[in-house]
Amino acid sequence: MKAVVLYEYAAPAGLRIEEVPTPIPGPGQVLVEVAASPINPSDLAFIAGNYVPRPEPPTRPGLEGSGTVVAAGRGAMGRYLNRRRVAFVASTKSGAWAEYVVVPHRLALPLGGQVSLQAGAMSVVNPLTALAFFEMTRSAGSRAVVNTAAAGALGRMIDRVLSSEGIEVINVVRRPEQVEALAAGGADIVLDTSSANFDDEYKEVCHEHGADLALDAIGGTLTRRLLAGLPRGSTVVVYGGLSEQAAQAEIGDLVFAGKTVTGFWLTRWLPERNPIQILRLWRKVQRLIGDSLGSEVRATYPLDRIMDAISSYQSEMSAGKVLLTPDRQP
Amino acid sequence: MKAVVLYEYAAPAGLRIEEVPTPIPGPGQVLVEVAASPINPSDLAFIAGNYVPRPEPPTRPGLEGSGTVVAAGRGAMGRYLNRRRVAFVASTKSGAWAEYVVVPHRLALPLGGQVSLQAGAMSVVNPLTALAFFEMTRSAGSRAVVNTAAAGALGRMIDRVLSSEGIEVINVVRRPEQVEALAAGGADIVLDTSSANFDDEYKEVCHEHGADLALDAIGGTLTRRLLAGLPRGSTVVVYGGLSEQAAQAEIGDLVFAGKTVTGFWLTRWLPERNPIQILRLWRKVQRLIGDSLGSEVRATYPLDRIMDAISSYQSEMSAGKVLLTPDRQP
Repeated sequence: MKAVVLYEYAAPAGLRIEEVPTPIPGPGQVLVEVAASPINPSDLAFIAGNYVPRPEPPTRPGLEGSGTVVAAGRGAMGRYLNRRRVAFVASTKSGAWAEYVVVPHRLALPLGGQVSLQAGAMSVVNPLTALAFFEMTRSAGSRAVVNTAAAGALGRMIDRVLSSEGIEVINVVRRPEQVEALAAGGADIVLDTSSANFDDEYKEVCHEHGADLALDAIGGTLTRRLLAGLPRGSTVVVYGGLSEQAAQAEIGDLVFAGKTVTGFWLTRWLPERNPIQILRLWRKVQRLIGDSLGSEVRATYPLDRIMDAISSYQSEMSAGKVLLTPDRQP
Repeated sequence: MKAVVLYEYAAPAGLRIEEVPTPIPGPGQVLVEVAASPINPSDLAFIAGNYVPRPEPPTRPGLEGSGTVVAAGRGAMGRYLNRRRVAFVASTKSGAWAEYVVVPHRLALPLGGQVSLQAGAMSVVNPLTALAFFEMTRSAGSRAVVNTAAAGALGRMIDRVLSSEGIEVINVVRRPEQVEALAAGGADIVLDTSSANFDDEYKEVCHEHGADLALDAIGGTLTRRLLAGLPRGSTVVVYGGLSEQAAQAEIGDLVFAGKTVTGFWLTRWLPERNPIQILRLWRKVQRLIGDSLGSEVRATYPLDRIMDAISSYQSEMSAGKVLLTPDRQP
């Protein structure tokens, strides 16, 4: 089969397309014929070497996707999944950017008939993250939440999910044209970090709405600014590092104002839920995927064009998702 | 009376010695004839404008001290305190670096007969902070704790209090000679951030002892290094900013390793305790002040020599406390 292989953590330059043996599912595993796999910010972090785990190369990128189970190792769950359409999370040893992928049963989630393989390909990482943030917001009792990278696919999803649950979302973007795009899309509050009076406006809006939680996909100096504008006792939850800089926090905000910086990772958060909670979350994703949990697809590329796919996505990360769709030769 | 007055947040350059009216205690207040007041790192932060609150100048520095109550406003508590020796915390409007100071009843803590006025002058901020860290360590269930600025008065106190309660303390200092001084003083583990292999050694020691909490008086890049070496799920509690830099944290430590940076301020922490808890803490301070909660005094200066006192303290903050002792002319 064809697969993308990472030989070096050097972003796209470290990738090759190769013919590799089609993997064979072991006990507790299924083999998925991949239909589609998105390029997520976490994939870009992985191929640049900014992700944990960071296995020794050669390794295989592509963290999620969708497809059809075509073979199963021993076990009742495998028999149940066989021939079904699934969404899946891939390991860093056996990536989704390939014609076939082996995944453990528990990371292959059956797709309802109403969900297309394209929508299903983007149904794990972002939708579950958005729902995790909703759970987090609810259990913290927050009335209002700051949402960074708000023009991106996940940012839009977070806005839709939280807003639909009655939580005020303070959307933060990095360019003026994104303010217009989000406002046109129905977002209530949108602030632009490139604006000269961002910090004052941001602080005012946070205090007015009682925002005490910020979801930070950026890090660097933005973390400091996000924390500074929030009221005493607030928390910034870092879940990405698009700035590629260490997060910063003013001493006074930590010490005198009792603010906190912490982190979120879906891979850590999910295993802390019990199977019933995960099943409930997954049902919610399936129900909402056509609506608030859906992402627009801008382009699809065959595996061979992985370089074009990545550069297309990087050129404008807020303009819809880019999918890899392996084009098998039978 | 003579008092130090701050005209500008410009460190010592903003201070003047002046004759000002002796204050008169209102209802719920007492007037203390000041015996001694230390120069603490928090005082240096205050006069440099890096403290909260930060009242409009002119204002009056000096955050704690000891003395004798010589007058009381209306109220039974005032009558009880009158003529007693007390330790006190001053407000930023009516500082301790003066011949007399007005403080609210609840911030004047009677000193037991065994405690000298000199020891009492340093008995509130540092000892209560050290005990607060012990409470925090115990309620977090930590077996081992990282202690920065370990050569300073508070750092030594934290080491003594936590060690005596069976908690392993990983002391962190900034110079090789401080390693020797602390080891000679009985400290068990001492690491030096200026050493080339600090980061590796620190990580190894933290993992070996299961340290999951670091008490950070420094901020800046040290926060990042402290966090990086701790095991997954650990917390850095920032309580000072001696580096005068924003605290940093690697995105990967926050996101993938689920680590947290938060802050501690005694002024926030104490009011969250009930009066019984505070009384119990204060009794413990009194009992331990001659022993693990005591600080060495390097020099005393009259108010007139405030500039010399500050520069003496700043020249070597780890070599014992510097006290101001108002020298009244009757």
